[in-house]
Amino acid sequence: MKFVFLILATFSFATLAAAAKPIASELLESSKPTDWRAVAQENLLYMDLPQGQVIIELAPEFAPKTIENVKALAKEKYWDGLAIVRVQDNYVVQWADPNAEKPELRRKVKQARETVPAELDDTLDRSLTFKRLPDPDTYAKEVGFHDGFAMARDTKAKKMWLLHCYGAVGVGRDTAPDSGNGSELYAVIGQAPRHLDRNVTVIGRVLQGIELLSSLPRGKGKMGFYEKPEQQIKIRSIRLGTDVAKTNQLNLEVLRTDTPLFDKMIEARRNRSEEWFHYQAGRIDACNIQIPVRLK
Amino acid sequence: MKFVFLILATFSFATLAAAAKPIASELLESSKPTDWRAVAQENLLYMDLPQGQVIIELAPEFAPKTIENVKALAKEKYWDGLAIVRVQDNYVVQWADPNAEKPELRRKVKQARETVPAELDDTLDRSLTFKRLPDPDTYAKEVGFHDGFAMARDTKAKKMWLLHCYGAVGVGRDTAPDSGNGSELYAVIGQAPRHLDRNVTVIGRVLQGIELLSSLPRGKGKMGFYEKPEQQIKIRSIRLGTDVAKTNQLNLEVLRTDTPLFDKMIEARRNRSEEWFHYQAGRIDACNIQIPVRLK
Repeated sequence: MKFVFLILATFSFATLAAAAKPIASELLESSKPTDWRAVAQENLLYMDLPQGQVIIELAPEFAPKTIENVKALAKEKYWDGLAIVRVQDNYVVQWADPNAEKPELRRKVKQARETVPAELDDTLDRSLTFKRLPDPDTYAKEVGFHDGFAMARDTKAKKMWLLHCYGAVGVGRDTAPDSGNGSELYAVIGQAPRHLDRNVTVIGRVLQGIELLSSLPRGKGKMGFYEKPEQQIKIRSIRLGTDVAKTNQLNLEVLRTDTPLFDKMIEARRNRSEEWFHYQAGRIDACNIQIPVRLK
Repeated sequence: MKFVFLILATFSFATLAAAAKPIASELLESSKPTDWRAVAQENLLYMDLPQGQVIIELAPEFAPKTIENVKALAKEKYWDGLAIVRVQDNYVVQWADPNAEKPELRRKVKQARETVPAELDDTLDRSLTFKRLPDPDTYAKEVGFHDGFAMARDTKAKKMWLLHCYGAVGVGRDTAPDSGNGSELYAVIGQAPRHLDRNVTVIGRVLQGIELLSSLPRGKGKMGFYEKPEQQIKIRSIRLGTDVAKTNQLNLEVLRTDTPLFDKMIEARRNRSEEWFHYQAGRIDACNIQIPVRLK
């Protein structure tokens, strides 16, 4: 009797285990090499700060002209010695020329362009992979992912644009839409400021080191600007991956967002079957899905 | 002729000015004393850190039993000398007894209770003011504000609960829902982790000083726990407002969320008429509305 019971118990356990939905960490562990996308060095910015290194992936499908200029700026070492000038809590970290408003002192661009047309949104490219999320979004009809970048589409207006999620990198500008050339950039360090979507050009996202930016002291000036020059954080350098010495290049991989595995990851985030969770949201916001990044 | 033209021009300008929708900052400047709610000292926690002071407002309409215990813990100075033990980027800052897992070393509660029933959601109280937002929310059917606290309602299930927006304060727990008694608390410092809604008891929100928490160095251990005791941030004290010396009490006011002015503020956030904005979202997420707080 004991033996039979044991077998029954084992069956029962096996059935339960099969029925339990996988959790995100288990899915990630089960990933195959083909579930990952190698990031091209030509789309990486290496930002060196006294605090460490911040790695940004550019998304040239979305803002090609601006990104071309950002690459030109990196090539001419535009940012070296410039600074993080603004840290606004629950909003953005911004880097720029501290003397941008002083014509005689400000750093001149060389090969890069002084002005670039705004790329607030882009013509919808249906050839791009797009993993659409099933749940309602407050701000857009269709949201989802292309290559790990959170994006929205408007199929009627034939437009697409990147979302201002945590870690998104955008182009600071003045009042005129075309007033940013990519020399002044910001990264989101708080609740997704989705009202900025389609108001500024988004060029990519931080893949690594966002915590170095988000933990910086907040600026006490208006809009989080540092009030004293000595509070600013000096940028050692910003380099395009292809200009980084081979030995210092990082071979980063981003989890692909166009695979059956990612579909399961989304489901694991919509309904968390970790034991800790007692209530299942059954929903997920695009900015609440963190796309895994790893060193190859 | 010049004179007439001048008058016409003045009229024209006046018409334009009247037509332009007010922006949030202008609305705030136009507020009257009755647009503000004085915060009761009995619902304030004063948390003193080496970095400065963090002020939390408790929401006893939502988690009365837990909040009663949190007040009892503050009264017996439970947290004095304990520490911030966890800072996870884009997630939470958590404070607790660093020796919580060591029965012989951990701090014992005195008058406060060792266990408190979970208050993951509450029975819907229709007598509470509720300013509902007009836009779709990913996670809940109805979201809005009561007394400045972002909340959701399910009128069918007759439930209501507080949202995990930036600055929300909740009760750390183990796997069992009832395993938190309020002695271990966390504050949200990133993208609203709305999947935590109804999974943990939320007791209030940070009114002032959240930037002191959000700018702390991130813990490098699992889930952002500090790996070394010397990395932890020692809590000088946490006091209930009524136990703070009159001269040190802050007379804080929170903008009322049940007024015509607040209705206009919501509209000003849904459609930003600041000159800088070229695209109007026409929508707003509950966690993207920051409720103003001021010193009386």
